[in-house]
Amino acid sequence: MKKLTLALAGLMALGVAGSAGADQYEDAIKYRRAAFSMVKWNFGPMGAMVKGEMPFDKAAFARHADNLAALAKMPLDGFIDGSDLGDTKSKPEVWEQRNEFESKMREFVDAADQLALVAKGGDQGEIKSKFSQTAKTCKSCHDDFKTK
Amino acid sequence: MKKLTLALAGLMALGVAGSAGADQYEDAIKYRRAAFSMVKWNFGPMGAMVKGEMPFDKAAFARHADNLAALAKMPLDGFIDGSDLGDTKSKPEVWEQRNEFESKMREFVDAADQLALVAKGGDQGEIKSKFSQTAKTCKSCHDDFKTK
Repeated sequence: MKKLTLALAGLMALGVAGSAGADQYEDAIKYRRAAFSMVKWNFGPMGAMVKGEMPFDKAAFARHADNLAALAKMPLDGFIDGSDLGDTKSKPEVWEQRNEFESKMREFVDAADQLALVAKGGDQGEIKSKFSQTAKTCKSCHDDFKTK
Repeated sequence: MKKLTLALAGLMALGVAGSAGADQYEDAIKYRRAAFSMVKWNFGPMGAMVKGEMPFDKAAFARHADNLAALAKMPLDGFIDGSDLGDTKSKPEVWEQRNEFESKMREFVDAADQLALVAKGGDQGEIKSKFSQTAKTCKSCHDDFKTK
């Protein structure tokens, strides 16, 4: 957690220095929303494959899982102080219960990393299990930190 | 190139299967635009550090470079057939000169990978050189394939 917090502090400082005035908050919101929209795009076909709604394509699944693992690490940088208002569905709890929020984001990152790992192996049972675990980390965080 | 084309064909098939009707084209445009906006966000502080407008922070630079390398691989999936019209600055040449376009995207991916690699080492001369090389691949592709 310490490393994550330090990295975030560093990026918050960058965000401040790299942007001008109030736009930095809008930019931060856009950044995290872009990241989540890309998470969703990659999640879609993986979910369809896991549910059997689409033929399982090992290479495509692994590619989406790699994208997801990389993207999972990105939205946190957009949750800078002061970006709680604006075009966002984030609850105030993101900032009020910061440790819990970062902990849930870390669970997502870890689950996505594990999914990307088993996706390379190709065992469909393991893949389904890790996919389901990853999806649960999304829901768990949304329940506490995102408005409907 | 063959692997890239195959991967793209697979993802185009996924795009078709995973979306309903005309929304798939809008979704694809949104996906690639989200990717490019995140590329820009990560590029900003790296550029400021390279230019000396911001103190050089090795860990932050490496993090942005890792993000960039991952993101560089993603927008191509959004350039599906049929997504040439709509809310996009892409020129028709993206589809008309596909090999050239994919080749330029590949140059971006390769340059970003090299930047991420030298960023871990931390030699500022190498970092500046690779950063500049990466920025050139952006411009080169924009010149040919993006409207102003």
